[in-house]
Amino acid sequence: MLKIADRIAQLGTETAFAVSGEAAVFAQAGNKVYPFHLGDINLPTPGTVIEGSMKAIQDGKTGYCPNTGIPQLREVLAEDINAARGTHYTMENIAIQPGGKPTIGKFIMALMNPGDEVLYPNPGYPIYESQIEFHGGVAVPYTYCEGKDNFEFDMDALEKSITSKTRLLILNDLQNPMGAECNDAEFGRLAELVLQHDLYVLCDEAYFDMRYEGKSKSFASMPGLEERCVILYTFSKKFAMTGWRLGASVGPKEIIEVIAKINVNDESCSNHFIQYGAIAGLTGDQTEVKAILQTLKDRRDAAVDILNSIDGITCFRPNATFYLFPNVTGLMQRKAIDDYESLRKTVLHETGVSFCTRLHFGRPLPDEKTFYIRLAYSGIDLDQIAEGLGKFKNWAA
Amino acid sequence: MLKIADRIAQLGTETAFAVSGEAAVFAQAGNKVYPFHLGDINLPTPGTVIEGSMKAIQDGKTGYCPNTGIPQLREVLAEDINAARGTHYTMENIAIQPGGKPTIGKFIMALMNPGDEVLYPNPGYPIYESQIEFHGGVAVPYTYCEGKDNFEFDMDALEKSITSKTRLLILNDLQNPMGAECNDAEFGRLAELVLQHDLYVLCDEAYFDMRYEGKSKSFASMPGLEERCVILYTFSKKFAMTGWRLGASVGPKEIIEVIAKINVNDESCSNHFIQYGAIAGLTGDQTEVKAILQTLKDRRDAAVDILNSIDGITCFRPNATFYLFPNVTGLMQRKAIDDYESLRKTVLHETGVSFCTRLHFGRPLPDEKTFYIRLAYSGIDLDQIAEGLGKFKNWAA
Repeated sequence: MLKIADRIAQLGTETAFAVSGEAAVFAQAGNKVYPFHLGDINLPTPGTVIEGSMKAIQDGKTGYCPNTGIPQLREVLAEDINAARGTHYTMENIAIQPGGKPTIGKFIMALMNPGDEVLYPNPGYPIYESQIEFHGGVAVPYTYCEGKDNFEFDMDALEKSITSKTRLLILNDLQNPMGAECNDAEFGRLAELVLQHDLYVLCDEAYFDMRYEGKSKSFASMPGLEERCVILYTFSKKFAMTGWRLGASVGPKEIIEVIAKINVNDESCSNHFIQYGAIAGLTGDQTEVKAILQTLKDRRDAAVDILNSIDGITCFRPNATFYLFPNVTGLMQRKAIDDYESLRKTVLHETGVSFCTRLHFGRPLPDEKTFYIRLAYSGIDLDQIAEGLGKFKNWAA
Repeated sequence: MLKIADRIAQLGTETAFAVSGEAAVFAQAGNKVYPFHLGDINLPTPGTVIEGSMKAIQDGKTGYCPNTGIPQLREVLAEDINAARGTHYTMENIAIQPGGKPTIGKFIMALMNPGDEVLYPNPGYPIYESQIEFHGGVAVPYTYCEGKDNFEFDMDALEKSITSKTRLLILNDLQNPMGAECNDAEFGRLAELVLQHDLYVLCDEAYFDMRYEGKSKSFASMPGLEERCVILYTFSKKFAMTGWRLGASVGPKEIIEVIAKINVNDESCSNHFIQYGAIAGLTGDQTEVKAILQTLKDRRDAAVDILNSIDGITCFRPNATFYLFPNVTGLMQRKAIDDYESLRKTVLHETGVSFCTRLHFGRPLPDEKTFYIRLAYSGIDLDQIAEGLGKFKNWAA
């Protein structure tokens, strides 16, 4: 008799995929859908990456490569990361991965024992919660609250939730879904806490390069923290390569060696020839990479302007990521809708606008009194943003 | 202070990588190396696969795809597998993976609880042992013994090792490293045991299509077993795509759904555009695919003939896989070498011939009295086989 292993009951998922499924069903029924639910990018991968990969295939780079990736990419990537972050990595600090996501589970497997407590952002990327609990840890949420210009770290609450069992911190600065980021004071206080409590940190920097104003800063560059941080790096966003599956784990050599051993067990190696494409992307002409950012910035501004013109919605304009997390509490009150799924389904069916809600980003915390939805503008063109959110505005009127 | 998680102590690896490393060092010092240690393929990927992938990139298939893979590939693959195996799969029985290897760990995570006993082949692919123990199971080895024409299942020993805790069987028919395969009587007895003891089976069929004579048969096609087997399928060997990383888990819908949920957590999805290349490979012209097989067959025959002409070596000529597992007990006695590593290093340094030994395929069993080495002929050309094994023969003389 088929009995699924007990551990699977602890395994979470990305419930946002159900939203994609519903939107697809609605579209197949002949309706227009405005896809704000997708964290995917509907822009072509830069030619540099494509040509570099093609050339590598022609050169026969179709066999296995080392478990940690080809040395040339690890060298180039270490230089690139150091230049952008002020860190001091070499190729020995880098294990190439088939995407950004694999680093989450591998970091946890490498450093967390069952019963260890792990601080993680909530609302946040749901795979953190899933992987912590799947591997027997205790997922301890920290959250953000609304500040003047953007969401801010709830530092007091975070400090209070540290116990003698706290072992790891997951930090997604430039955060999905909130677009939040730490200022220098917050980084400073966080660094003190990490050192004081002997924590190790997963720095999920998936959106580090998706920045429209200002300059991104890595928590790993803080004094004494390079030895305590593993950076989740991905080629997916900057190079519009989500479907290519290439990323890296970047951190202390001792941890990277463990992650490399997990690579041997899980997937042998990442795709060989795409790694040459990634080198071409990092070192070649950056015109197309910059154009991706400009396109996303224009979309952000269009979406934020319309959302803020809707009665009952307030929306920050984050300097980074390609997500918006508007407060829709007023709108829901006006419409007498008191649960997320009713709002989401009603708007989908009455306007075609498809988005995720707070529910898709970790288990809700006790006593949440404000309501948020999440819109991604990476997978929808400017004219469709205007048309879709225009319909949403009319519905909301 | 950095403390690696306790579970990592249970994680094994492929020690064969150390052999590659030693061979590389020896080559860098200016010596000629004959690489028989690699399970990689030094032949180009068929043009159908390359062109199909290129076209998909041009068509914009560079974003995420479903966690289980694109429906078109799952349909085509189900048909292809059914045609070759007489099974009854549909796309719902298939979850595309980034290679063949991921299915090993995912099968174990999906079905094995800590303390469960898992039967696995030894000598065998070392990742079985590693993943069973990493996830808290008890790895119970079964072995093969020398028959008339090839290695044969030690069925009596396997039956005796089944207990009330035995839950899973890992079967690598067309086996790495031994090239062993079951006959109909052995499949029949194994099927009885699986049904009698309520076991679930990982059918590692990585070498199913690497066959030079006769016809491969899948254990999953036995009566009542399609519901109890998960097939590890890979594009790596048949299409010389080891470095592309594409494979699939194929099995009962309920298990595939769990594996798909693990996909969501581990890597989101497999590379998108390569899946179109795989469709082109499966459905397009098979001339290049057949040429790969013919090349490997010629290599096999050359290698087996030379090995059997060496005093103190006997070598079967397996109909499938691209591995040879010669008995070198006599040679070691003549040369007064009594351990594997001495033999391997001596032959490397005195002849340049680099191979793995029994030690690289699972922990040795008690009371092993015969000695074996493993040669892969997938990564070395015919003339180099003759030249390298000629030097080995001279050394052995």
